[in-house]
Order: sequence, then structure tokens, then C-alpha cells
Amino acid sequence: MNDNTPDLRQVSASQIRAEIRAGRHTGHTAGLAPGKLQCNIAILPEAYALDFLRFCQRNPKPCPVVGVGETGDPMLPTLGYDIDIRTDVPRYRVFRDGELIDEVTDIRALWRDDLVTVALGCSFTFENALVRAGIPVRHLECGVNVPMFRSNIDLAPAGPFGGKMVITMRPIPSDQVAQARAISARFPQAHGGPIAIGDPATVGIADLSRPDYGDPVAVKDGEIPVYWACGVTPQNVLLQAKLPLCITHSPGHMLIADVAEDAETTILKPNSEGPL
Amino acid sequence: MNDNTPDLRQVSASQIRAEIRAGRHTGHTAGLAPGKLQCNIAILPEAYALDFLRFCQRNPKPCPVVGVGETGDPMLPTLGYDIDIRTDVPRYRVFRDGELIDEVTDIRALWRDDLVTVALGCSFTFENALVRAGIPVRHLECGVNVPMFRSNIDLAPAGPFGGKMVITMRPIPSDQVAQARAISARFPQAHGGPIAIGDPATVGIADLSRPDYGDPVAVKDGEIPVYWACGVTPQNVLLQAKLPLCITHSPGHMLIADVAEDAETTILKPNSEGPL
Repeated sequence: MNDNTPDLRQVSASQIRAEIRAGRHTGHTAGLAPGKLQCNIAILPEAYALDFLRFCQRNPKPCPVVGVGETGDPMLPTLGYDIDIRTDVPRYRVFRDGELIDEVTDIRALWRDDLVTVALGCSFTFENALVRAGIPVRHLECGVNVPMFRSNIDLAPAGPFGGKMVITMRPIPSDQVAQARAISARFPQAHGGPIAIGDPATVGIADLSRPDYGDPVAVKDGEIPVYWACGVTPQNVLLQAKLPLCITHSPGHMLIADVAEDAETTILKPNSEGPL
Repeated sequence: MNDNTPDLRQVSASQIRAEIRAGRHTGHTAGLAPGKLQCNIAILPEAYALDFLRFCQRNPKPCPVVGVGETGDPMLPTLGYDIDIRTDVPRYRVFRDGELIDEVTDIRALWRDDLVTVALGCSFTFENALVRAGIPVRHLECGVNVPMFRSNIDLAPAGPFGGKMVITMRPIPSDQVAQARAISARFPQAHGGPIAIGDPATVGIADLSRPDYGDPVAVKDGEIPVYWACGVTPQNVLLQAKLPLCITHSPGHMLIADVAEDAETTILKPNSEGPL
């Protein structure tokens, strides 16, 4: 490649991370490195890491853990080649005591010897599989964010972590709901099958046209609203726990791993194809 | 029930645990509470729990975590009703500094405020699914233990935990290997799909008739040896880490949960059917 501005849609995950690391890509990651796992990121002090992993284990649908770093080590070798979590996410949010204090594109200055990185699966994985199967995904068609709602579904608590599950809604043609359920259930690392199907009242949603986060989308005649666990859940839970320090990716600005999104496990095999 | 010796094959998981808790059943659990999740158990001091959970996350095929207790709390509410891990496993092994020092049927006297219980899935789950699909499972036909081998497959290390994977071998008729692979892959909480298929030399096995643990079984004409990750792996890894204290179940003497073995997640739902 002879210029410094490669088309990110044409290059490998490793090359995209290099662009991000160099500060040349600070935007969202939707549609980049098709077929590669994209991850929600939570970085927190080790003192809270055991409780957070227990919380994730007890709430695997909103919080599917796909990678955990060593304490103080910014590298994530199980997810990809030379991933440095301090530089390889396009945009980060920095929280202190539960308050958003900064949004940055590099956290080298904030890194500490007691920080632990937890990577969580994201809905891109099953959405891609739905699209491949010919199932329409409305918010992608419309070019907007998925509508997200605070549900009435209790999370199983652990230490300071708990609360209610955040869920997404996708309207699915009624004759494709069973297929959408089966396809998404094949991806437990990406929220798995739906949490609920149909009446929004059963999951505590008063008005489908007024999401708590993201954008509203129309539910057309012949479509049924289908609800999945959402990766905003752990972000909210971390915020409510008011940790002295917590760093997450900014919504939509994910870590792109070298692991295939449909791999049986999210652990890079030693003999996998290396970076280009 | 009017007598004190129920047929354990006819009663619920909760009733079996009550028999175990009362000391009336101290034998293995194979075939009991069909359809319920059975678990490998590791109990270790909190100081090692974060590293052990990282180890399990990085080695999900031998170490599929299905439940984690609160520090110092012997109850496991996500796995079942009133499970007390101090009494509800038929037989335990107690290790100090990597040495087996005792085998007991109750660990109330050993319980400490800093102990953490980790429950891991077991191969009973996918074996039951193979049998239901008409795929023969040789060691079950023969009434012996599955043959287990120390493989040449490196585990991804975490803290003091690492080493080589222990694997099981089941001979499968060649025309059913693809089906066996697909069925077991549906149970990531129970070792998932095979680690390897065919030539034992590729996984470091010199002689299939001489397993390192368990019993040898014949590979007949037309059958192919198929290898799965084994729950003895975490036991070996814990032993080699020489923790000051570590308690496991005795082989075959599992914790029986109230969660269905084919549930999408291993987390008991609040509205699930209660104990009888």
C-alpha cells in the first residue's frame, strides 16, 4: 500500500487497528473487517475484576465475556495479534466515580498496573448472520442506531454490580421470527437468542417509539418486535457501581479482533493465520 | 415418599441433593437426574480466583464455567435451589500445596470466608445428546470410565495456571463423526465440539490402549477415534499450581444442578419451576 489512507473496508483487522493506533481512524467500526469479532470493552481496577467477571458469568446474555487481559498488561493475545488496548480502540469513555469525565482516542496516559481489560461480545455478530440469512434488520436498512430500552428484567447481582437489563428491539417479519431466534441462539458469545418476543409491556417498555438510547424504528404490519440482551447493560452497570476509575469504548467504536465472529470459541489458536 | 431410601433414578435433582446432604448417597452421579446439568467443582481461595477465572475464559473447551459463588458463600443460587456446596457433592478431594490429603463427603469443617466455588460443565451433557441421536458411546456401553489422555495441546496460561490439556477419546462410526461433531458443538457449556479427530499421534497420544486416566476402550473397524477436551484438565492444573488449599469433587461424583443440561444458559431463571 503506497498511501497513508487505505480504504478501511478493504483491509485486514490488523491493518485497521494499525490505522486506529496511529490516530488516523477515530470513527465507528460498523461494517469494518467483515467476519471478525468486534468487542465491547470495559477496563477496571483489579479490585473489582473478580466481582465483574462473576457478574458477567451470571448474566451471560447481556455480558458475554470474550477476552480478559492480565492485570496491568494492555495486550490481549487471545483476541488478536499485537492488540494494545491503550491505543487500538477508536474512541474511549473515561469514568471516575460514575461520572463521564472525558472522551479520548488513546488511554496510554491513563494506564495503570492494576487495570484489567474485559472484552464482551457485541450484536454485530448475530446481525451479520441475520442479514446473511435474508432476515431484514430495520435499523441497518435505515442507517440509524438500534433502539435500546431499559427493561424490567432484573440482573443477577455480584458485588457492586446489578440493576436492570438493557435490551434492543428489532422488528422481524412474523414468518421469520423462529429463524431469527435459531440463528441468534447459535452465537452465545454475541447475546445469543432473544430475551423476549412480542408485547413490549412484558419487558417493561411503555412506548416502542421512544427508546432510552439509540433511534426509534418502525414496526410494520406483519412484523413482531423481538428483544435481545444489549451490551449497553454492562456499561450502565459499571457506571452505577461508581468505580473510582472505569474506561469503556465509546458506543459503536469497538475493538476489532482477529478472531472470526463465528468461531466456536473466541480464543485465537496459536496456529491461526498471522497478521498480513 | 414413606421410606428413607428413594430410588435416586426416580427423583428430582433437589431430592437427590437432599439424600447426598444427609449422607445417604456418597456414590457417583452418572445417570442421576437425567436432563439436569452436572458440574465439575473447584473451590479455591479468593486470592487465586481471578486468575482461575481468566484461565477458564482462555481455555473454554476444557474449562467451561457454568457457575461462580460469592466469596465465602457456600450457596450457588444461579445453579439451583438451596445448593450448599459444603454438603451437596457426594464426595470431595482436598488438596494442600498440590498434595491430595483427604477424601471426604462433607466439607463444612473446611469452609472458610475466603473460599470461592467455581462450577464447570461436564461431558455427561453431550454424551446424553449423542446417545439420544443414536450415536454409540463405547465406554457407556461397556460400563467403564471414559479413556483420558494427557495431550500435547498447550493451554493458554493465566497466573499460576497452565500446562497441557487432558482429552477424552470416544470411538465413533465414521459415518456418524460429522453428526457427533455437530451435536457436541451445540453444548459449549459441556466442552463443545471435538478438539481433534483421527490420528492419535497428532494430539500426542502414543498408544490409545493405554489411557493416562480412566479405562481403555476398543476402536473397532469402521470407527474413528474422536477427541474432546476433558474436565480433568482444570483438576490437574489446580494440582500443579500447588495452591495452599483447593477442594474438588471426586471424579464422577458431581454436583447435580437444577438447570437443564440443554438450557441456552446455565443460569436458573427466577421463574423456573421450584423444588418439589
